[in-house]
Parts: sequence; C-alpha cells; structure tokens
Amino acid sequence: MATSGHVPFESVPGFQLAAVKAGIKASGKPGLGLVVAAGAVPAAGVFTTSRVVAAPVTLCRRHLESTRGQARAIRVNAGCANACTGKQGMANARATARTAARLVGSRPAEVLVCSTGVIGHQLPMERMQDGIEAAHARLGRIRAGAFARAIMTTDLVPKAAGVRLRGLGGARLAGVCKGSGMIAPNMATMLAFLLTDAPVAPRVLQAALRAVADATFNCVTVDSDTSTNDTLLVLANGGAGGRTIARATGKRYSLFLAGLEAVCLSLAEQIAADGEGATKLVRVRVRGARTTADARRAARTIAESPLVKTALFGNDPNWGRVIAALGRSGAAMREARTTLTLCGLTMFRSGTPCAFDAKALSRRMKAKEIELEVELGLGAAACTMLTCDFSYDYVRINAEYHT
Amino acid sequence: MATSGHVPFESVPGFQLAAVKAGIKASGKPGLGLVVAAGAVPAAGVFTTSRVVAAPVTLCRRHLESTRGQARAIRVNAGCANACTGKQGMANARATARTAARLVGSRPAEVLVCSTGVIGHQLPMERMQDGIEAAHARLGRIRAGAFARAIMTTDLVPKAAGVRLRGLGGARLAGVCKGSGMIAPNMATMLAFLLTDAPVAPRVLQAALRAVADATFNCVTVDSDTSTNDTLLVLANGGAGGRTIARATGKRYSLFLAGLEAVCLSLAEQIAADGEGATKLVRVRVRGARTTADARRAARTIAESPLVKTALFGNDPNWGRVIAALGRSGAAMREARTTLTLCGLTMFRSGTPCAFDAKALSRRMKAKEIELEVELGLGAAACTMLTCDFSYDYVRINAEYHT
Repeated sequence: MATSGHVPFESVPGFQLAAVKAGIKASGKPGLGLVVAAGAVPAAGVFTTSRVVAAPVTLCRRHLESTRGQARAIRVNAGCANACTGKQGMANARATARTAARLVGSRPAEVLVCSTGVIGHQLPMERMQDGIEAAHARLGRIRAGAFARAIMTTDLVPKAAGVRLRGLGGARLAGVCKGSGMIAPNMATMLAFLLTDAPVAPRVLQAALRAVADATFNCVTVDSDTSTNDTLLVLANGGAGGRTIARATGKRYSLFLAGLEAVCLSLAEQIAADGEGATKLVRVRVRGARTTADARRAARTIAESPLVKTALFGNDPNWGRVIAALGRSGAAMREARTTLTLCGLTMFRSGTPCAFDAKALSRRMKAKEIELEVELGLGAAACTMLTCDFSYDYVRINAEYHT
Repeated sequence: MATSGHVPFESVPGFQLAAVKAGIKASGKPGLGLVVAAGAVPAAGVFTTSRVVAAPVTLCRRHLESTRGQARAIRVNAGCANACTGKQGMANARATARTAARLVGSRPAEVLVCSTGVIGHQLPMERMQDGIEAAHARLGRIRAGAFARAIMTTDLVPKAAGVRLRGLGGARLAGVCKGSGMIAPNMATMLAFLLTDAPVAPRVLQAALRAVADATFNCVTVDSDTSTNDTLLVLANGGAGGRTIARATGKRYSLFLAGLEAVCLSLAEQIAADGEGATKLVRVRVRGARTTADARRAARTIAESPLVKTALFGNDPNWGRVIAALGRSGAAMREARTTLTLCGLTMFRSGTPCAFDAKALSRRMKAKEIELEVELGLGAAACTMLTCDFSYDYVRINAEYHT
C-alpha cells in the first residue's frame, strides 16, 4: 500500500516546502527545512518519552496545547539538537518560531520547531535566522526527495513514503523521517513529518497518530537508546474536501488510520533497515502472548539483545540466545509451549530443539530482510518489533566518532 | 580486604576438591570439578531470574529446599549447559547427583550440580559419569587455581578471591567464579562458588548470600543478557570453630557479611573486567537518587547503553550519551540537578555543560579501570554498577562463533 516515493512528500496539495543550506551541518549540505500550510490547519504530535527533553520538543508540546492542535508551519534543522542547552536553548527555539511566524504571517504558537544533531551546543542563531529567511524565499521551489535529504544526519539513505487514501476523495498522505539509531545523541535522533490533505479534526488526528505511533515508530529499536529530540508530527489541511473526520470511529476514520499506519510502518522499516551499521532489516514477531505488554516486552528484549543481534550479523541460527532473551524479558512464557522460527525454518518447537539444516538456514539469513517468529502459546496478544543486526560498523560509527 | 589468591579456593580447611578432564570441553582442558565436605554442611544458593531455567538450576533449588540448606558436595561441568533439554536433561542432572552421592556416601539431595556451556544439548552421560568417578579418585590432589580454570569457558583469565575473616577465629572464606558475558548462552553463563569454614546457620547463610549478591553479582552487566544457568553457591562447614552465627544481626554476622561482600565484589569486578571484548573495567556510580530502585535503574541503563559503551571504548568523553541514557532510564531525575563526572573530571554540572579539557579526559579514559559518576541531587540512594566497554572484539566473539 505505502510505496516509498509513490506520493512524494513535496507533492501534497496545500503545503509549500523548502530545504536550504544554512551552514549548520558540518557536511555543508542543506540542513534546514520549512513546511508552510496556506492557513492554520489541524496538527498533532507524538514526542520522546525521555525525561531529558530538548527545547524544541518542549516548545512543540506547548504550542500544540495552546492552539488546541493547530499549526501553520514546521521548521526543522539538522546539525544541532538544541538539547541540554538550558534557558538560552529555549529562548533560541522560541526566536526561530517567531521569525518563521513573522514571515508566514501567523502567531508564533502556530509554528512547530524540530532540531536534530549534537547535544549540549547552542543553535548558531545568525545562521538559523538567515536560513529561515532563505527557506521562506524559496518556498515551493523544491525537488521531490529534497526535504528528506535535508533532515538526514548519520542516515545513509533518505526515507520517504506516501499513499493515496482511497475512499477519502483521493486525498494524499505522505511522510519523511530521519534516524539511524533510536538515538546516537551526537548526530542522530528520530524525526518524522507527515502531510495530508485529508480532512481530519485535531483531536482525531492526535488519537490516530498516537495509535499508529505505538504500532510503528515505537516498535523500532536499533540500539535501545531513546533520543531527547524524538518527534513525529502530522499536518492535515483538509484540501481534498469531503466531510471532516470528527470521530475516531467509523469507516472514514478506519480508511485514514489504515493509510497513516501504512506510511508510518514503511518509514519505521526504513529506519530499522538503515540502523547504524545494519546489514539487514529484522522483524521480530511475537504471537500467542498473554497480554500486549508481554508481547511487546518479549519482542523488544529479543530485538535489543546484543547477543541475538551479533548472531544475526554472523548469520548464525543461534536459537539459544533467542530463548535466553525471552526468558529474561519478564514476559509470561513456558519453555514447553514456546516455538521459535527463523526465516521460515522452525528451530525449537514446544520446548524441544528441532533438527534443522543449519547451513541452509544460515544461507537464508543472508537476505536483506529476515523474520524471527516466536509463538508463546499462552494467549492471543502479538507484537512485531523492527530492528537490525549488530555489526563491526556499529562499533566503528559510535567509537571512532569524537565529540 | 579481598586480595585475589590470598586465600586460595583450594585451601579452605574441611573441603576436598578435584578438577579433571572429562572430554566435555572442546579444548580438551579440565572441565569437571568436584567439591566435597566432610559431612553435610550449611549451604545457600542464589540463582538465575530467567524464566527459562536450566535443569541443574532446578535441581539445586529443589535439593536446597528438601535439605533445608545442607549440602555435602558440588559437581560442576563446563562445555554443556544442560538448558532447554527437557525431561531427559532433568534425568541426566539427577543421575550425576546420584553418582556423586554414592561415591561420597551421602543422599543425592545433598549434592548440588551446576553446568555451563552450549544450550540445547544433552550432557554426554558416559563421559560425565566417568569424570565424576575420576574426580572423586583424585580428591584433595589439586593445585591452587586449578578449580577456577576448570570452570572457565570464554573467560580469558581464571577468577578467584579469598580472605581471612578477622574476629571469627581466623576462619577462611574463598571463592571462584566464571563468566565473560552476563550470558553468551552458547559458551558462557555466570557460576560462582564460595567455601568457608566459618560457622553459619543455613538460614543466615542464605540471607547473607542474597544480600551480598544484590550488591555485587547482580550489579555486573556485560551485555544485559541474563543466563539460564546463573548460579552462586556457598558452603560453610564451621570447621574454624566458635559459636554458630544463628541470626542475621550482631557483630559476628556483620564481620561475616563484610568478608562475604569483599570476596563477591572482587569476583564481580573480575567478571566485568573480563567481559567479552572488554578493554577496561567501568564503575558506574549513581548517587543522590530518590530511591534505591531508581539508582539501580539509572546505573544499569547507563551501563548497558551500547552508545555509552562504544564511546568508552573509543575514549570519547561523550556526556550527551550518558544523559540521554539517564533520561530514558525511567529513574526520577531533573536535568538542572544532574552532575556528570568521568575519571574525576566534571563534564556537566547542575544542568549546564562544563568547559573541560576533552583531550586530557580522553587520555585518562585509556586506563584499565575508570569511574563514571552521576549525581542526581534528589535523595540519598546510590548504586554502583560494574561493566566494561563495548569493542569490535565483542562483535567478533559473538558473530564469528557458530553454533
């Protein structure tokens, strides 16, 4: 459903975009993005659960609260996270929102600001303000794919996905994101932006975003670290027309939710596949758990186990590490009811090791995408966690980089 | 206090030991150990918290329960974990206990059995039983250090510590352990054995062991994985004489507890320092937490963060990763009250980044042992977690090993 690039982020009617160089990224590449709607439109956000919260995240939360879910613009920068920057950091975030508001003719509270990059440094304010002016002057003159590239940090590839929302007057929904570790606090963070011209009321938009985030972005783990800047935003300008989706029930809501989930799942999978040092995307599917919390705990513990991840990198069907991770996860489980399947081959069934062709399985493990299935046999709850393997390159990227 | 090797494990009066080759370890080195007391003596154990529990752990728990904390012998093997082995695995563990019991003239319930090695394989029973006979025939003819070597798997160095318990009639307390990851289920697991001739009642011994384990072995994390076989056992034959310590209070109990803690802390530090791929021992000290649970959560999250551990390997004073780990730990914290100190240099004080000499700090980080101190400024609770850095060699050891 959500074919990456099928509906470019830059093509959603009713939004103008720009991406410019602003001298913030060390690489000299464009690192400042601006999204502007024709007027204030319904907006919703989901943010980091960390207790250390970057200034832009605090500001986004306040703005969405004070406008009751309306926004006119989003300004993003890469190269500086504006996290652990105290009062000055907060003042700087506010100042960039005021500049953008002045240019687009809105209230500052209608501007959402997002940052990613080094922790503990202040934003270079002159370059930031000049960059916002430059971006505003270039609004609308952007090529498909340019926005996703502007927000990249250690990402190796830009990440985008988009769909036409059938049954909703052909409305479009498109998104971009960046993130290569759940966090690599100096040069990463997860940011995702979604634009749609479907008509959705703010409260419904927020409910849909929260529900979808839990099943998609909140199921990605590269290295178990959560960022101080994680931000997921959606703007819905209603330009496609039709009756506004005003309740989180009914057919039209379901259609919107399905589109939103498809786009977010595609973006989340792109993040896991581009995890720092990753050689493959791994889907850890836990089924038959007693509760959803148990399914999540089991899937996440397996997906974050360094021993499981190094075995996946080494193409070693080491089920002992999987069951050991499961055993310590805290999820209700019984060895005698547990079945483990990797790349379609069952290694351990109902508590008993299976005879399987380890060499053949090792060959299957070399694929770009692999599935590790866990059946707990205790209930009906399930969860799929998205992750990647753990390679020498993860250590290289994170040990050889110097602050 | 606990000088490694000061009181060799093999020298505690009233215990006879043996370590023999049994053809179980792939290396051909001795892999079977036997400890025998002159009669049934007070014994206590602390075991894995995993829900996947190896047969020898289940058997140890049952035996200690049925004897109300008495044991005559311990038999250990490396090379095969006897985990995920079903009913056959349980029958095999029992059979080895019966053989040892027959040889030493005790009830099978007075024999404790421990295994470490590959998950999912049955014990080679003929070699095991022959090995137990051979070990029994050689009891007492063992060199200092040989027992610790016999239980090694991926460990690079044998681990031992021992003290004279002052004020307790010169009683001795000595221990050995093995473990190189909290778990590397195919060739690791944490096992620790302590012997003493101090006079301690079984219930007191169990209480002391539990208390000390929480502050020592339960504060070691190499890779966040908990084994299916983790076992810590202590036998106390009372041979040193004196009044039996029958309550977990008073001066004599305190003296015993201090000795036990010193030995266990030394062994725990030796495990962290020999963590798979480790280049240094790292002590993560969290102070000023609101509760002990918070202190533990904060210290453990930092000690297990792959981003923090790769930065420590790279000698990079990357405090942003430490505060990010703290922020997601779930522990109560406020940025404005938090202070971070590494190798004695403060990097972040009460919410504000400090100017520090990053090159000088990077040089200090090259030491074999380093301290990362976190002051939360919210209360009086503290916890020190022992860990190591995360290197290319961790990936090599765990990705290139094949099941």
